Amino acid sequence: MPQHVLIIGAVAAGPKAAARFKRLEPDSTVLMIDQSKTISYGSCGIPYYVGGDVSDASELRATSFHMVRDNDFFKEVKGVDVRTGLKAVQVDRAGKKVLVRNVDNGKEEYLPYDKLVISMGARVRKLGLPGEDLEGVHYISSLDEAILIREALTKGLVNRAVVVGAGFIGLEMADALADMWGVETEVVEITSQIMPRLVSPSLAAMGQRHMEEKGVVFHLNEKVVRLEGEGRVQRVITDRNEIEADLVIMAPGVVPNSDLAKEAGLDVHERGGVLVDEHMRTSDPDIYAGGDCVLVKDLITGQPLYLPMGSLSNRQGRVIGTNLAGGDAVFSGAVGSFVVKIFERTLSGAGLSLDSARAAGFDAGSVLMVQLDRAHFYPTKALMTLELVYEKGTRRILGIQGFGSTSDALVGRVNVVAGLLPHKPKVEELSNLEMAYSPPFAAAVDILNSLGHVAENAIEGRLLGVYPDEFHRLWEGDGCYFLDCREEADASPFLKANPEQWHNIPQGKLYERIAEVPKDKPILLVCNTGARSYEAQVQLVSKGYKNVQSAMGGMAGLKQWGEKLD
Amino acid sequence: MPQHVLIIGAVAAGPKAAARFKRLEPDSTVLMIDQSKTISYGSCGIPYYVGGDVSDASELRATSFHMVRDNDFFKEVKGVDVRTGLKAVQVDRAGKKVLVRNVDNGKEEYLPYDKLVISMGARVRKLGLPGEDLEGVHYISSLDEAILIREALTKGLVNRAVVVGAGFIGLEMADALADMWGVETEVVEITSQIMPRLVSPSLAAMGQRHMEEKGVVFHLNEKVVRLEGEGRVQRVITDRNEIEADLVIMAPGVVPNSDLAKEAGLDVHERGGVLVDEHMRTSDPDIYAGGDCVLVKDLITGQPLYLPMGSLSNRQGRVIGTNLAGGDAVFSGAVGSFVVKIFERTLSGAGLSLDSARAAGFDAGSVLMVQLDRAHFYPTKALMTLELVYEKGTRRILGIQGFGSTSDALVGRVNVVAGLLPHKPKVEELSNLEMAYSPPFAAAVDILNSLGHVAENAIEGRLLGVYPDEFHRLWEGDGCYFLDCREEADASPFLKANPEQWHNIPQGKLYERIAEVPKDKPILLVCNTGARSYEAQVQLVSKGYKNVQSAMGGMAGLKQWGEKLD
Repeated sequence: MPQHVLIIGAVAAGPKAAARFKRLEPDSTVLMIDQSKTISYGSCGIPYYVGGDVSDASELRATSFHMVRDNDFFKEVKGVDVRTGLKAVQVDRAGKKVLVRNVDNGKEEYLPYDKLVISMGARVRKLGLPGEDLEGVHYISSLDEAILIREALTKGLVNRAVVVGAGFIGLEMADALADMWGVETEVVEITSQIMPRLVSPSLAAMGQRHMEEKGVVFHLNEKVVRLEGEGRVQRVITDRNEIEADLVIMAPGVVPNSDLAKEAGLDVHERGGVLVDEHMRTSDPDIYAGGDCVLVKDLITGQPLYLPMGSLSNRQGRVIGTNLAGGDAVFSGAVGSFVVKIFERTLSGAGLSLDSARAAGFDAGSVLMVQLDRAHFYPTKALMTLELVYEKGTRRILGIQGFGSTSDALVGRVNVVAGLLPHKPKVEELSNLEMAYSPPFAAAVDILNSLGHVAENAIEGRLLGVYPDEFHRLWEGDGCYFLDCREEADASPFLKANPEQWHNIPQGKLYERIAEVPKDKPILLVCNTGARSYEAQVQLVSKGYKNVQSAMGGMAGLKQWGEKLD
Repeated sequence: MPQHVLIIGAVAAGPKAAARFKRLEPDSTVLMIDQSKTISYGSCGIPYYVGGDVSDASELRATSFHMVRDNDFFKEVKGVDVRTGLKAVQVDRAGKKVLVRNVDNGKEEYLPYDKLVISMGARVRKLGLPGEDLEGVHYISSLDEAILIREALTKGLVNRAVVVGAGFIGLEMADALADMWGVETEVVEITSQIMPRLVSPSLAAMGQRHMEEKGVVFHLNEKVVRLEGEGRVQRVITDRNEIEADLVIMAPGVVPNSDLAKEAGLDVHERGGVLVDEHMRTSDPDIYAGGDCVLVKDLITGQPLYLPMGSLSNRQGRVIGTNLAGGDAVFSGAVGSFVVKIFERTLSGAGLSLDSARAAGFDAGSVLMVQLDRAHFYPTKALMTLELVYEKGTRRILGIQGFGSTSDALVGRVNVVAGLLPHKPKVEELSNLEMAYSPPFAAAVDILNSLGHVAENAIEGRLLGVYPDEFHRLWEGDGCYFLDCREEADASPFLKANPEQWHNIPQGKLYERIAEVPKDKPILLVCNTGARSYEAQVQLVSKGYKNVQSAMGGMAGLKQWGEKLD
């Protein structure tokens, strides 16, 4: 029997649900409303529009075959009615109708529904700082806001910018400003690292160093207290600095638009976010919700997770569309895959970082490793750094994070683990993973296999590894015996620069020169990437040495981290 | 208790087993023997050495830190004894010793073992054709053979080459010869397509067209009967042609070296290949085997599978090393992941192709689709073609194959499915797969998600799709009504070129112009990549049309396939 579906919110989950439903039930009707006049756009493309990679804002609203997804498009191509400039005010669940208000003239009316979809997205979390209303201060809240920023850049109004917040959007905007427009860009972050909770401090430092090499200045552990200027913003005042700026991008994150759902009596999380079951149904069986206004199940912890991403919104929208038509589609949850491009490097991950895993109550451990992304004899190749987080007792993989060149090689590895995580894989599964092999694409032992090996060795107590940041703390101290187990030619610059602290025995000579290695000091072994130092660790332990550690990622990891030894 | 391990074969699985075992049991001893004097080399790198990407053959024998893996390296760095130039002649299982013969002087001796590892690799399958012994005719059997080929190229002796066999090695060698050395290269293949059994005829045609554009000439369904020349080869005689050639590369595949194991009474498959359990143990508990001389379990069919790949050899070697030391490591089998670079394109896959699935007894279906590999508004992007093979009743994914640019984007997608295949995923798992999303790396709805959607729609009978090769047959016939449902500007060149056969109604206008579409003819719908033609198919079916099909992959797929319509 034909039914009438009303959809509140027309950016990602809503349009997807509408189109899918209409394909399954062409005789039913759909009305999709939005308070904005601009609908169905790829907000994740905003940094690339601001940075100029995307030349016109309309491209973010177009299909891959260059049709703009406006009201007419949805009517003609998808059979979906759209009314924009209508704000949903109240849901009358008993009467199965929604009170809406015209944003231009304030007129109110009721819109009926058989089934309702709430896909109202998220709003920026405003910090409420003094000076936020100055010209040149922007929260990235919409495509319209992005157009204003790009106009200011095009007109040459911007020489110095400050980005507040070092999450995805903050880093992407810093890249856009510094790379394409040559703007002097500084990033202020309240925590002690970029990408907090998402990657380890060591990986964060690698990303930060690369951005610093590109000219971006970072202020970590620093809090913005106010913005100053006359008319237009002129400076950002933090609890430790004054930073000149004629553009300020506020990127402190977003919060779900779940108030309407809450007022309608639907189950909403205490910190916001509509609660839905795995069919994307709310606590009212005639109302579905999806996209940035809902919480989903974290497939690692089992807890509710807020993950506002366009990719999830689209998949949830399709599930809703199927179920509106009587189907049985399931969105079981998310593992939190992410990737962010920062200049010529990439940070990516899925599942939990070590800190997040411990915060969630896991007895977690982690390893870090550095390896070439393809056969070492193939001419084009690059180092990739991966970190694996696991539960110690069960050997279950909890997450993976990585840092590497801007190529699909890193995200390709992360995606494999992202796909496996719902199956609760153990580290052994990584060791045996069957990556397609050919020298232009992988090493015979792919870095994911090696990562599994390293994790196995760590879990079984054979590898005692230290992270680059731990290495730095040990290097600043004076208790350790640092042993470089590379060939002499590789080690000699470091020997010369640090004659007291640095020592060298090539790993192949370790047994014959073992008398040189002190038994009364902690030994810290280093090689290029960590393979030979692990081998040396095994050798020393077999000869009775007790306190031997190996620098995970080796000199390659330390260099990316920013350690200066020579 | 220390034990003595003897390893026969020192290329990939053997060295890996040796090194792993010595790390776990430093006090035990390992002797590794090989009949060749060149050990531990990356034979998969041979085409890149011949093609010049790898400048010196020694790089294929080096570690990533540039140490050559020769006998001294294994002794010093890995603690493993190596003796080369020793051929294993007979295994005395009762006496736990192996009779070996010195290849230079013929002297024989017995080598004892507590545990034995057979990692004797594979040998080329010789065709035994008249003229095979002519100069300039090479089976790719070893690094030494590759050095001879490269010398001939460097000396300018080669103007025209013939490659026999269009599998991995054949295609990689054809690429190497034509791309780097400008040699006029022709490939003779006995079956009707390149990469037989591994990819569908449509994907094979896409790869072949690309290589033809690069100047390679193909002879399919053609059998070499003899080679002719005086001293050096001058021509290849097939059952249909005579082809001039001063270099002939024979690449008909390899067979496992399992004769020694068979003579020793170990379980060996009737068509060759040592049989092992998931611990890589042979039918004798003191003898392990791994690498190109063994069969593994096909994780899709459950049947024995011969998959000679360096990547598998390495992983099997590590499992053997662990188990030699009393561990419990498992190599459960393989799904057959592969990737091959052909000029600027890549063919990759995992699991079964449609033909292989049907041959294995599955009631299998498949879909093909074309989509951009990242956000359509991102400046750098490319089309990717993927094919999914599934079991109809269970909806289980049996395999994935694809064709795309030479980047990690395609192999990244294939690897995700390769990782999932052992878990017996259903097509829905692909629809919900959580690929890390950001516009430079993926579309919000990633092509893998879309592939799942398309497969769901096909399984449920909503999508009736035709492959490019089926399209071609229908186009050659005259029963179909071809309806281009793109916008008029896109369709008009085809309308002009084929005024009788081609018709155009933009999908958004289909309902209002539906009277133009005949009810008495099969309808074949086409758009850019298949998305709009599917939408149009749903619309026509909802209006009572019975015989409507959609061109999977659209004009993009047809163009890659080589269809000429305008």
